[in-house]
Amino acid sequence: MNFTSDNCYGAAAEVIDAFQTANDGAAPSYGEDKLTARLNARMAELFEHDVAMFPVVTGTAANALALATLTPPHGAIVCHPEAHIVADECGAPEFFSNGARLVLAEGGDGKLTPAAIKQALKRLQIGLVHHVQPAAVSITQATECGTCYGLEEIFAISGLAKSRGLKLHMDGARFANALAYLGCSPADATWRAGVDVLSFGGTKNGAFCAEAVVFFDHALVRDFEYRRKRSGHLVSKMRFVSAQLLALIEGDIWLRNARRSNALAQTLAKGLRDIEGVEFAYPIDANSLFVRLPDKTVARLRDAGADFLDWGPSEGGRTLIRLVCSFATPEADVDGFIELARSA
Amino acid sequence: MNFTSDNCYGAAAEVIDAFQTANDGAAPSYGEDKLTARLNARMAELFEHDVAMFPVVTGTAANALALATLTPPHGAIVCHPEAHIVADECGAPEFFSNGARLVLAEGGDGKLTPAAIKQALKRLQIGLVHHVQPAAVSITQATECGTCYGLEEIFAISGLAKSRGLKLHMDGARFANALAYLGCSPADATWRAGVDVLSFGGTKNGAFCAEAVVFFDHALVRDFEYRRKRSGHLVSKMRFVSAQLLALIEGDIWLRNARRSNALAQTLAKGLRDIEGVEFAYPIDANSLFVRLPDKTVARLRDAGADFLDWGPSEGGRTLIRLVCSFATPEADVDGFIELARSA
Amino acid sequence: MNFTSDNCYGAAAEVIDAFQTANDGAAPSYGEDKLTARLNARMAELFEHDVAMFPVVTGTAANALALATLTPPHGAIVCHPEAHIVADECGAPEFFSNGARLVLAEGGDGKLTPAAIKQALKRLQIGLVHHVQPAAVSITQATECGTCYGLEEIFAISGLAKSRGLKLHMDGARFANALAYLGCSPADATWRAGVDVLSFGGTKNGAFCAEAVVFFDHALVRDFEYRRKRSGHLVSKMRFVSAQLLALIEGDIWLRNARRSNALAQTLAKGLRDIEGVEFAYPIDANSLFVRLPDKTVARLRDAGADFLDWGPSEGGRTLIRLVCSFATPEADVDGFIELARSA
Amino acid sequence: MNFTSDNCYGAAAEVIDAFQTANDGAAPSYGEDKLTARLNARMAELFEHDVAMFPVVTGTAANALALATLTPPHGAIVCHPEAHIVADECGAPEFFSNGARLVLAEGGDGKLTPAAIKQALKRLQIGLVHHVQPAAVSITQATECGTCYGLEEIFAISGLAKSRGLKLHMDGARFANALAYLGCSPADATWRAGVDVLSFGGTKNGAFCAEAVVFFDHALVRDFEYRRKRSGHLVSKMRFVSAQLLALIEGDIWLRNARRSNALAQTLAKGLRDIEGVEFAYPIDANSLFVRLPDKTVARLRDAGADFLDWGPSEGGRTLIRLVCSFATPEADVDGFIELARSA
Repeated sequence: MNFTSDNCYGAAAEVIDAFQTANDGAAPSYGEDKLTARLNARMAELFEHDVAMFPVVTGTAANALALATLTPPHGAIVCHPEAHIVADECGAPEFFSNGARLVLAEGGDGKLTPAAIKQALKRLQIGLVHHVQPAAVSITQATECGTCYGLEEIFAISGLAKSRGLKLHMDGARFANALAYLGCSPADATWRAGVDVLSFGGTKNGAFCAEAVVFFDHALVRDFEYRRKRSGHLVSKMRFVSAQLLALIEGDIWLRNARRSNALAQTLAKGLRDIEGVEFAYPIDANSLFVRLPDKTVARLRDAGADFLDWGPSEGGRTLIRLVCSFATPEADVDGFIELARSA
Repeated sequence: MNFTSDNCYGAAAEVIDAFQTANDGAAPSYGEDKLTARLNARMAELFEHDVAMFPVVTGTAANALALATLTPPHGAIVCHPEAHIVADECGAPEFFSNGARLVLAEGGDGKLTPAAIKQALKRLQIGLVHHVQPAAVSITQATECGTCYGLEEIFAISGLAKSRGLKLHMDGARFANALAYLGCSPADATWRAGVDVLSFGGTKNGAFCAEAVVFFDHALVRDFEYRRKRSGHLVSKMRFVSAQLLALIEGDIWLRNARRSNALAQTLAKGLRDIEGVEFAYPIDANSLFVRLPDKTVARLRDAGADFLDWGPSEGGRTLIRLVCSFATPEADVDGFIELARSA
Repeated sequence: MNFTSDNCYGAAAEVIDAFQTANDGAAPSYGEDKLTARLNARMAELFEHDVAMFPVVTGTAANALALATLTPPHGAIVCHPEAHIVADECGAPEFFSNGARLVLAEGGDGKLTPAAIKQALKRLQIGLVHHVQPAAVSITQATECGTCYGLEEIFAISGLAKSRGLKLHMDGARFANALAYLGCSPADATWRAGVDVLSFGGTKNGAFCAEAVVFFDHALVRDFEYRRKRSGHLVSKMRFVSAQLLALIEGDIWLRNARRSNALAQTLAKGLRDIEGVEFAYPIDANSLFVRLPDKTVARLRDAGADFLDWGPSEGGRTLIRLVCSFATPEADVDGFIELARSA
Repeated sequence: MNFTSDNCYGAAAEVIDAFQTANDGAAPSYGEDKLTARLNARMAELFEHDVAMFPVVTGTAANALALATLTPPHGAIVCHPEAHIVADECGAPEFFSNGARLVLAEGGDGKLTPAAIKQALKRLQIGLVHHVQPAAVSITQATECGTCYGLEEIFAISGLAKSRGLKLHMDGARFANALAYLGCSPADATWRAGVDVLSFGGTKNGAFCAEAVVFFDHALVRDFEYRRKRSGHLVSKMRFVSAQLLALIEGDIWLRNARRSNALAQTLAKGLRDIEGVEFAYPIDANSLFVRLPDKTVARLRDAGADFLDWGPSEGGRTLIRLVCSFATPEADVDGFIELARSA
């Protein structure tokens, strides 16, 4: 029973198959191959928009490369304290951008709000050489709290961003989960809502190691390709990265996977909801749950072999834990976890 | 007929198999898994030495992370102008090290010499704040010219390096090819010859994307792990990277592969040697050939569908081309290439 | 009437005199001169402690060089949102440190508190590679709000810092003003209270361009001198920077100047206090006042030629303005300002 | 007798006077003052061209800020191995540019040649993501070898640079000395010869610490001002830096000073020329001499109190030494040095 993260499970069968198929013969390296070209075409179809698309192998690389491309070293990126770029990437945005600043803006349920962004921007006077200069806003979809921005929420943020000359980045490590929740088209969820650049996640949703940075405006690509090479993220046998993303996109495997992990999270939530002392920290939109459980329940689950993360120290006899469902989490594990939690 | 690079072919069958095996069930992420632990143990056995070993997905990342760990930003790394870190990584060493300098030292056949290193160090006064401070020497084994350092050559360089307080890095993107040529043990070719850190290459020799930075001294690891994370090179589903390297090492697939690509290079060389106007630029130790061919021969080969790189402009009716043999290059392609080249 | 900043006035007469004296004949450059050696000795006497002392020409350089020396690129520096390093240095700490992060901790009157620091540190798990690693705390004395930390406040912060393995930096651009307020010795205000590194300010207090980074522990100096050179802050004719600081220290000019500017601030405060609608945002410990004045009063002052900064937009008919007194502000200007402000 | 460097002497009397004058009253800080505005106007007159001009306090800062503005982090700057930016700034160009590369091109007498630049550019394929991308050429005028580029030499280099899309930077730490030698106008020596950005030196020629980055094209300024602030080089009391440069320019003090130091170098050369065993390493155009003297002569000079730098180890009984004349070097010292050298 592993609910630690959606990166604890491996790859979808279709991805492994795609590997074997991609392995046949020689092909140009560094992304000049046919699979990468096909991926670019598929991404354009998927998003109903011309895109400049660059596969990389980690979400941290996707985010940091995207953000570094959007901001000068003296720039600032407004983001939520819970964002992965803030909390879990060891300063990768600062490294890739040569020292740009993450400016934090609060907001409930792991989501930025226009009001909080405005507040954060107040201290940064445009054109004043003493201040870091706001360059971008970054939102996470689905968020690190397991919630999803509604389209109107994104629209409100992108409207503010545009009015201030800021670009909007979306960390979509769990973009598929958000889309499965929202039920809208990829286009609606991104460029139509004002997103300029998307980190399109594959790894957590059935790939081995495959993400893509998707620009909806070629003018924003600038020196991205030099940055990718220079940071060691231009994989020589790129076709294998592209093959993974193709395997997920073609045949809608990515949405099938995301729907399954979202559904498992709902099952978990439903099963835990009426246990005494249980409290959910956030709405459960995607595939993660943050739930307060009595300490003795937490201990019992661990004793029984359940893996998950504590999301803070015990307080008042309860501990906030994080449970993440993967596309590959066995249903039996979800049922087993619930049963264990309920058995007083 | 693709002789462009050894990264144009895919993965060895054993690597694909290892993927499938590794895909079973859940496992800790970020390198806390059993395969990565096993890889570390295997590496220690292989090198007959305690090692600190860190898998990454590209050779550029391996080199740049290793070098950045060895040098401060105000430091200098002595290397050959033909080194991959100089010629083909778009300034990755400078990026990862926050601006350390590559100081060039010449040497025939793509190899550094102690004399050239001494000459390069002359301009850098130790402890003088106006000068960048020498911190490391980096050699490439096999070199970018298809040659290999003999053990005594490495020993001479490491001796000089140690006497000056410099660490010795080996870019081993084609380490297997060098080892197959030298016929010595991995230990003899590295730490016993004075190498401090090795970029152990897997990708060019049968992996999809797998390299490892191997430290022979734990004290040198310093902040490597933060650097790896911060640069987006800590792969979450690490077991799949480790699985590739394990598949290559266990069963000696890596040496089998390297021996085959070296042998194909010898076959090519033998087949081309007595063509009129043919001239080899360097000795052929590993799996790459640099050969001058008459322009009309070059054109005929290209017309017939052979892929390879020009290594400079046509001069005196001949062009220097590079031919690289992969573990997976079909023998028929080698034979076909020779036949085409010989048919006047 | 210029109350914009204490950097709007020039140099003390003693500093100009020192220039002329220092100008005689030739001397070793880059800090190998006798004046710099004498300054080092005087600083040691002043602080009753062995020091490693490095003159630079701007406060931003002093702060950023000090902080970059204390933190690795993957490190974090805890500081107050109002700190100069956060609000007014265009990301210099990030630039010099190659991308370390400023982690903000709140606190009233522009001062950090141990509780706020603890809260900020909560999110950063020591040794976890995904998190930036806390390395230092930086406090500003006197603060950007015109207040001063009491010795016990510094002691509480340094105690916490030490218990967490963090170094304590003090931005002392207005250190003289703080000392004049506290009435204690330089030693009591710094190393005896647990400060590891001090940015000792001269410019705002009577120098033309002279600050010094003062380390109270030689082991912390590390690669500081390379950083200073590499960032263009090793002035060739260093003796003239040292001469300025010597002129301030010898004869206690620095304290005389600071006492005067503090006293002028008190005069201003006293003169403004009982005007209707007047409100002080912070206690007035040093030489800066933050005061809310009716908008019509603000307009009248500006019309009459008074220069000062608005510290936010008008709210409820009043505007928060900042008034800074310099060692060289004419008493008549202070009186004139008060008179203007009082004339309804 | 100090011939170590032209930064061993202090400031011209006019500069000290200018300080005193500038010290009167309050003025806007950070370059918004009248003296800085006047300096900008004077510079435009001097160069007969609209300029964007930014005072800084060290030559290293001027060079590194100028170069970082001209090149992206993945860029390359072609320069001579003897250039100050290569040999004496501890990697400042790399630091300020976030890791751009200095690509070396040889050339006699410390001067780059178009042929050497072409050769250096050969290895860097434009638009190829694996290669650092050439962005600028930097020349030093007068050179570190005491020679000067003729106008036609600069023109040939700038022509090549322009044809390759590279910008031309001139390190003019001793620009006045070059101008005094060439006898042409500042305009002829810079933008009319194709120079895009000039580091205009004041410190070595009579200022205490004053240089200026002079852009001849406003479009090239880009984010220079953020870079200057972010690197701690925006001096708050800027008027004192500007005052120094004004004092040098107004009244042609800078040329008077440079003519004097050049003339002293000629006197030295003349006096040493016919001593047995004397050999000059380079033509003596400006204020520096590189001369081989018998070791016993070198020893005798040192014993007599002469200060100068060895420019390499003793070879064949002779040592190459560097002698630099300052605007303030006493004539008696020059005569004394010659006399000592001649007395067998």
